[in-house]
Amino acid sequence: MSLKNYCFDGSKKLDLEKIPTNSKKDKVDKEKIIAKTKENQEKISELQDKLYADGREGLIIILQAMDAAGKDSTVKQVMSGVNPTGVDVISFKSPSSEELAHDFLWRVNKVIPSRGKIAIFNRSYYEDVLVVQVKEFNKTYHQADRVINIKSKPFFEKRYAHIRNYEDYLYDSSYRIVKIFLNVSKEKQKERFLERIDMPSKNWKFSSGDLVERALWDKYHEVYEDVINNTASKEAPWYVLPADQKWYTRYLVSEAILDSLKKIDPQYPVMPGDEQARLDECRQQLMNEDK
Amino acid sequence: MSLKNYCFDGSKKLDLEKIPTNSKKDKVDKEKIIAKTKENQEKISELQDKLYADGREGLIIILQAMDAAGKDSTVKQVMSGVNPTGVDVISFKSPSSEELAHDFLWRVNKVIPSRGKIAIFNRSYYEDVLVVQVKEFNKTYHQADRVINIKSKPFFEKRYAHIRNYEDYLYDSSYRIVKIFLNVSKEKQKERFLERIDMPSKNWKFSSGDLVERALWDKYHEVYEDVINNTASKEAPWYVLPADQKWYTRYLVSEAILDSLKKIDPQYPVMPGDEQARLDECRQQLMNEDK
Repeated sequence: MSLKNYCFDGSKKLDLEKIPTNSKKDKVDKEKIIAKTKENQEKISELQDKLYADGREGLIIILQAMDAAGKDSTVKQVMSGVNPTGVDVISFKSPSSEELAHDFLWRVNKVIPSRGKIAIFNRSYYEDVLVVQVKEFNKTYHQADRVINIKSKPFFEKRYAHIRNYEDYLYDSSYRIVKIFLNVSKEKQKERFLERIDMPSKNWKFSSGDLVERALWDKYHEVYEDVINNTASKEAPWYVLPADQKWYTRYLVSEAILDSLKKIDPQYPVMPGDEQARLDECRQQLMNEDK
Repeated sequence: MSLKNYCFDGSKKLDLEKIPTNSKKDKVDKEKIIAKTKENQEKISELQDKLYADGREGLIIILQAMDAAGKDSTVKQVMSGVNPTGVDVISFKSPSSEELAHDFLWRVNKVIPSRGKIAIFNRSYYEDVLVVQVKEFNKTYHQADRVINIKSKPFFEKRYAHIRNYEDYLYDSSYRIVKIFLNVSKEKQKERFLERIDMPSKNWKFSSGDLVERALWDKYHEVYEDVINNTASKEAPWYVLPADQKWYTRYLVSEAILDSLKKIDPQYPVMPGDEQARLDECRQQLMNEDK
């Protein structure tokens, strides 16, 4: 099973219960996968260097997941080795009061990378249709009646449309967006939570609130499925990647990033003829310094 | 002729050559108009105070025009007297290299006011479909092939759609947008340019480049008409206001702003019952201090 099978670009529906959270079905060899991941990382690093020099397109990678699916470690492992000058990692936390006093994409737009750069969003504006929908935060908004008096279903359907429009707009503004859902099983989350509780060095990653979210697992899954099916597009596809085995997740994430960089196909700028002549003059000038 | 006749909300087409640039047709009394403007300013000031206290909606006023139509003086005259805490004026100049390295709404989104505030855009993202279209700056963009290889007509039609979507999104995010085109005649522009050249205290407002733009008058008017007809909507209407007489322009601008504030209908927050009880306690506590 290749990356393609985990890709949702609007041409097929996602049924979250039917898609694997581990590599069993794919019958892969762990050692080979780890070696391939390393190769991919090198290729990503090369293409990122070209992307930065080229400066004509930007890449936005969105990571969404239930807790303990491995968002942080995926970023750490897959993107280590890439020149950090060209990569911004932005973690989206609960919105501040200033952020809540603006439109929900306000804080997003501020961190859109300049072209030539890669931005990784650890969580994103998708939280505004995920946690906000699951917990109905929209009902507590301090906003115009026309916004808060609308029922939740049409409210979030409008938000889906606004998100689709926004991603369309970014695509037309020379950006590519890759959206990744790390699909962890409920059993594996339990296992990783217990590890966080048992190991003092991991305690900081756990909060008792995590169990509140876990109790809403089914609701979250239902909403994730709805969100992905409503916002998957050719220009901004979703990848729903198995996340029970980190080595396999990392491989698939590296494949998805590599794929998008290949689509951009960045090139080192070629100097136009007269600029090339100027380079020759500069070389001559530098050489003459020693005389 | 009332404000309504100058309002374009998508229900009728604008023909820029047929719409007046002065008050002749409206047969108004100058003294009465000036008195009414003063009244309007007081009402705007009151409503702005409520808007700020309420904090549920934001207002964005966009001013576009040919040079010397009176954008600066309109802002100065109409909005003086309004508490500046609640008003941001943002002048959009030629984009910086950092701005050009991002999507064209990036610099706009940064200055979207928090709800409760009024933002006045002196020029705006409409320049990205106006001057950019007239001068074909899009052909010089350092962007993806899929963006720069597209012909100008579909390129700007896409931008119109992105702008419509953006304004829709802002409306759904509890903002109102009022778009004003100050419609000055070519003769009046000449007169005001000569004044700027002749009066030393006004020299700084003139640059020889202004005549380059003036030479493109017809092309600008053609594009303005196209832009307005493609982006006028009920939620974000355009007002095409006569700008040959400043006293009349100011009146109509004050009417347009007042109208939008009335639609928002801001209210001072009413304390809920238990908060009201707490206020009584606080009153008591303060009174007891003197004993």
